[in-house]
Amino acid sequence: MTGNAQLEKRLDELYAIGAEPGGGTYRGLYSTAWAAAGERVEGWMQNAGLETRRDAVGNIWGRAAGDGKSIVTGSHIDTVRRGGRLDGALGIVAGLTAVEALLKDKRKPRRPLEVVAICEEEGSRFATNFWGSRAIIGAIDQPDASVAEAMRERGLDPTTIATAARDDIDTFVELHIEQGRVLESSGASLAVVSAIVGTAHLEVTVTGRSDHAGTTPMDLRLDALAGAAAMVQAVESIAKSLGRPAVATVGKLEVEPDQINVVPGKVVFTVDLRHPDLAGRRALEERIRSLCGTISEERRLGLMIRTLQEKAPVAMHAEVRALLARAAKECGVQATDMVSGAGHDAQIMAAKCKVGMLFVPSIGGRSHCPEEATSPEHLELGTKVLAKALELLAY
Amino acid sequence: MTGNAQLEKRLDELYAIGAEPGGGTYRGLYSTAWAAAGERVEGWMQNAGLETRRDAVGNIWGRAAGDGKSIVTGSHIDTVRRGGRLDGALGIVAGLTAVEALLKDKRKPRRPLEVVAICEEEGSRFATNFWGSRAIIGAIDQPDASVAEAMRERGLDPTTIATAARDDIDTFVELHIEQGRVLESSGASLAVVSAIVGTAHLEVTVTGRSDHAGTTPMDLRLDALAGAAAMVQAVESIAKSLGRPAVATVGKLEVEPDQINVVPGKVVFTVDLRHPDLAGRRALEERIRSLCGTISEERRLGLMIRTLQEKAPVAMHAEVRALLARAAKECGVQATDMVSGAGHDAQIMAAKCKVGMLFVPSIGGRSHCPEEATSPEHLELGTKVLAKALELLAY
Repeated sequence: MTGNAQLEKRLDELYAIGAEPGGGTYRGLYSTAWAAAGERVEGWMQNAGLETRRDAVGNIWGRAAGDGKSIVTGSHIDTVRRGGRLDGALGIVAGLTAVEALLKDKRKPRRPLEVVAICEEEGSRFATNFWGSRAIIGAIDQPDASVAEAMRERGLDPTTIATAARDDIDTFVELHIEQGRVLESSGASLAVVSAIVGTAHLEVTVTGRSDHAGTTPMDLRLDALAGAAAMVQAVESIAKSLGRPAVATVGKLEVEPDQINVVPGKVVFTVDLRHPDLAGRRALEERIRSLCGTISEERRLGLMIRTLQEKAPVAMHAEVRALLARAAKECGVQATDMVSGAGHDAQIMAAKCKVGMLFVPSIGGRSHCPEEATSPEHLELGTKVLAKALELLAY
Repeated sequence: MTGNAQLEKRLDELYAIGAEPGGGTYRGLYSTAWAAAGERVEGWMQNAGLETRRDAVGNIWGRAAGDGKSIVTGSHIDTVRRGGRLDGALGIVAGLTAVEALLKDKRKPRRPLEVVAICEEEGSRFATNFWGSRAIIGAIDQPDASVAEAMRERGLDPTTIATAARDDIDTFVELHIEQGRVLESSGASLAVVSAIVGTAHLEVTVTGRSDHAGTTPMDLRLDALAGAAAMVQAVESIAKSLGRPAVATVGKLEVEPDQINVVPGKVVFTVDLRHPDLAGRRALEERIRSLCGTISEERRLGLMIRTLQEKAPVAMHAEVRALLARAAKECGVQATDMVSGAGHDAQIMAAKCKVGMLFVPSIGGRSHCPEEATSPEHLELGTKVLAKALELLAY
């Protein structure tokens, strides 16, 4: 079997574990499907000649011995509900396929070379996003009761989480699907990630006055929805005017009292805003806050904005970026640079080691759904460049 | 007791029937509270010397005999949930108080003079809006099963509804609260209604594409909510630019998938649009449909608009309007003309007789809530002008 056929077959096998009746797959942290997928991956690692072990939170490591700090590749094994075939799975399977090929061709690496199946990244079952990578960098204090119970059910001891922390990783590289349509629309077949965006989530509450839709003339209204609509427009305009890579999204919006013949008295909506550079993200937020303030004043509406969540942007390591670009070039492809709009384990790992990421195109930009797909040529290319990068790093 | 003290006392008594724990009152059609309120009103009618009867749907009529077709006043006895003290109740109580005073002062009228407590107008319990007045004009074919059962529980025979129809009414006049803040903001203390607006309810569906809020640049999005927000703005702008009495309201709006980090793929919202003149209402609707179409094309979004409901505007009878204005003048007040943005029984009765309405101001424009109120002076004035109008009509 060629490396590529092997890659596709393993992706199919993983996709079948946790398959949902309506399409897609679901491997929630510490679930039966999650455990079965982990066993399958551990078996592949052992067949490839790697020495395997599971750490305290259930990350699965496959290691080829060497000297000094480790070169690590991999991704997460959990999925969202009705998740696709590639998100997370690709990084594990491609990493394994790449390391397997290197070990066959080149034998023993100079440095320890490891493949990791990270137990959780998606918040797939609990509000634990980045659970696996946070354990690796030693950032978890205590699991909450429901997570601890789920760990015990899988034979893991929640009191030993601290032992999962590692200080001996030199570089972490991850191959992932883009999950958007930037590469597809630009025609590029591979990207080296320059940074992972910072995110802020805001909740905006607009307060007006509920009135009878028939008996209240337009000029006597305090319509919370008309005001909120102006703000939704403003959020879009500001992000558009700043241009790529700034994005801002109003994803949730609720109207009160939400009746056909009543002027809305209150609207609550969310803003998700992202930028790879902290100053850029703050500027975006400032402009949105300011324009929402102006709109609410102009319309004599109440306005309350609170921050639900804030995550700083994370730059990929310059050395690793350069090395990934070189690996691409050696494989005959010019990789483009791009910012990741989604979060990834690399942004957590960056606290303890050098990190870098490769993206392959997502067909139609689809992800987190059964339609998630990447052409076989792009999967092969991404795996080949990952193998070359690991060779440059570990041999 | 003065007429005014009597009026306030009766309004208090009716408000207490169906009082809800959190404030406001609820007298749903054919409910226990509804029946108790009817008995109270029938008792007052009898004390005033009126001959009472109940028709097939439960409208209560109190009649002073005379020759020819009847002069009728009254309003509806049902209320919305958490309804106020005046909506409907005022027209019944003021009509009764006015007729009682006329009978005392002037004795027997030339024409039959009647007070009616209309059984239902609000859609208070079933989707039966204008149930009482529709029975009076002979416009009800068959009640549905749940209404028929509720009728039987109150001792009414649903097979006899057709007998409630009347062809012997000359004029119907109704005193009502404005339920808006037009009078209050203009400083007028009384209005003669010129027309009841026509209403159209539209449902607008905007279809875009759900995308990851982080990985999809602004210029590659088909954001259904951003498009819908532009349409909400357009609805408001068009109604504002047409000026009073045109109104248009987006009261309900739903986003799919309604997640903080997902670009909305679909939005469904409603438009309630009203105008007293059919051509005006159609022009309003045309402009809204056209601008929504432009916005959806510009943004490459799907658009579907369907009409949920359409009610034609109803003009009040010119003779009755003139007579009400004259009655006001004789009471020493200059009544203003205004359009009713809300629906009323008069718009149904207009199919079979001459109709007219008087409005008194609503404090803060509040209605359909416990805060619904009108100053005692305005209640007294409205009742006085109503009595004068009934005198001019029936004596």
